[in-house]
Amino acid sequence: MKHVTVALDAMGGDRAPDIPVRAALRAATDHGIAVTLIGNQESIKAILVTESYPDHLINIVDAPEHVSMEDQAVKAVRGKRRASIPVGLELLKSGDADVFLSAGNTGAVVASSILSLGRLPGVDRPGIAIPIPTAKGPPLLLIDAGALVDPKPEQMWQHARLATTFYVVANQVSNPTVGLISNGEESGKGNGLVRAVHKLLGDDEQLQFIGNVEPRAMPERPCDILVTDGFTGNVILKTGEGIVNLVQESLRTEFKTRWYTSILATLLKPAIRRAGKALDYREYGGAPLLGVNGLVMIAHGGSDVTALVNGILTAARSAERNTLAALATSLDSNVNAQSPNADDRSG
Amino acid sequence: MKHVTVALDAMGGDRAPDIPVRAALRAATDHGIAVTLIGNQESIKAILVTESYPDHLINIVDAPEHVSMEDQAVKAVRGKRRASIPVGLELLKSGDADVFLSAGNTGAVVASSILSLGRLPGVDRPGIAIPIPTAKGPPLLLIDAGALVDPKPEQMWQHARLATTFYVVANQVSNPTVGLISNGEESGKGNGLVRAVHKLLGDDEQLQFIGNVEPRAMPERPCDILVTDGFTGNVILKTGEGIVNLVQESLRTEFKTRWYTSILATLLKPAIRRAGKALDYREYGGAPLLGVNGLVMIAHGGSDVTALVNGILTAARSAERNTLAALATSLDSNVNAQSPNADDRSG
Repeated sequence: MKHVTVALDAMGGDRAPDIPVRAALRAATDHGIAVTLIGNQESIKAILVTESYPDHLINIVDAPEHVSMEDQAVKAVRGKRRASIPVGLELLKSGDADVFLSAGNTGAVVASSILSLGRLPGVDRPGIAIPIPTAKGPPLLLIDAGALVDPKPEQMWQHARLATTFYVVANQVSNPTVGLISNGEESGKGNGLVRAVHKLLGDDEQLQFIGNVEPRAMPERPCDILVTDGFTGNVILKTGEGIVNLVQESLRTEFKTRWYTSILATLLKPAIRRAGKALDYREYGGAPLLGVNGLVMIAHGGSDVTALVNGILTAARSAERNTLAALATSLDSNVNAQSPNADDRSG
Repeated sequence: MKHVTVALDAMGGDRAPDIPVRAALRAATDHGIAVTLIGNQESIKAILVTESYPDHLINIVDAPEHVSMEDQAVKAVRGKRRASIPVGLELLKSGDADVFLSAGNTGAVVASSILSLGRLPGVDRPGIAIPIPTAKGPPLLLIDAGALVDPKPEQMWQHARLATTFYVVANQVSNPTVGLISNGEESGKGNGLVRAVHKLLGDDEQLQFIGNVEPRAMPERPCDILVTDGFTGNVILKTGEGIVNLVQESLRTEFKTRWYTSILATLLKPAIRRAGKALDYREYGGAPLLGVNGLVMIAHGGSDVTALVNGILTAARSAERNTLAALATSLDSNVNAQSPNADDRSG
């Protein structure tokens, strides 16, 4: 294992810089990970002075400008070169950090990453691969969670390849299975985009393609990787968030209806809270932005310290395992770009 | 109120004809609704002989052929003219029934309805408007739940108009609000299709358009009607199903971890079951297929007797209120077809 440095956006997320700084301190203290905090130097120092921690593992790089969650991605990228996101990406580019993690404005992270780092060979547009909790086994990887809302079929095939490489390195397994989100399992199901991607994935012998997967099957973990366009991926995640909230709300209402259920519910609260946590993808830390020429991970804006510590650990592990070098060769045997009908050549 | 007859597909759904027949008997006995059962005459009679019910309210129309849930919609429509779906639609067309309800193969119901009944004036393609439970108020109406997976923007605008009319008649209110499913609330968010539909809905002064809605906001009921394409609508429903199952599974697992939570959970089971039911869109009965020239409602294939009785009641109410006549005029002032830039004429 090489020693790695995680560049952490100290200004990203709902309660920045407080949560990112405390997450960095815990990652350094408990796990010996070197973290460079990027953000408003004075605000960061104001938190650090009240804490004790291993000094040699924590660095600060000043980034005086601010990108808010509401800023439009493109404007943020063009106008604010000294904000934490572009400054962090420059550290990555110069080799002063091995991976960049941000809970800030996702659109700004995606746009800045493409601009600062460029893309990996053969990649048109990067995708966000988000870990999704399931009823059994490790979380499955859903790509794309929202980086590219209007992909071409070839771009979704590129995402399938990138996610496969990431999954192999992250989980130290070979031949992870790939499914395609659709409105039915049969191969003819789906909109025009899905049907075109189905053919590309099926034609690629390097992918373990299992066919279409309905979203309701996700909790049963039908495959390791699920491919979808960024619009649909984002809709799935946000439907999930809404429904988990609705279930918790319904249980609360229901428990209030009788005096004894109310008492029982109070006793059960910790169990219900744990069940909710098992469903919360924030717990699983960062989601890699796959396809840019650098290791970039995105955390949920609502991440708490625990979630962000998990994100730092995931980021550090990815860097230690030379994930970027593996990703750079993901599209080397580019069957779909070079000969989309390779199977038909004999015909 | 006029006296109406509900034509019920006795062969549709997971446990047909048992569940449809029992639902028809309960609707007739408890609610005085006339139901015509369409399906295999002998199987239906075999259930009826064991029951007592108001004879004059129950009729049977024989439909000897069978469309399975797995049959491809187009094949089913072309090859099986004497199956319950086409026979039921013919009853509707001839005026022998006022509304047709089926828990069978949705694709076959949609395709057969277009073929048998034709479309309402100004409608290109019908959409399925499904009631979605929320934390407060009546269920909101989501259109399209899967009839049209690759719509044009104008077709989604047509769905918005049709759903508005249906909501007005069904809930006896005026000016229901309309939202558009997107991956962000800002008006620039969404894929190309969503951005085009956003403009069409915003330009139509007859719609109370509130803008984009993220799926996570659905439980808070941000509007009365939500418009989306059939692919995304289906993905939302199936993500919801999957997550409700996952939550129930997680709670079960969690409750088992300690002996006292296990005992408490047993005591709480009825409350948890009720909470699950409040989230189950099957409870809300049928979803209207809007845009065809006849009242057609689709029930979930997994409907139990209670759900199907609710579907029969909803169907009967729709017929009593002359919903079809109202729907037929939904697109009369067709701003988007006739002059998409009506607002700009003065400029």
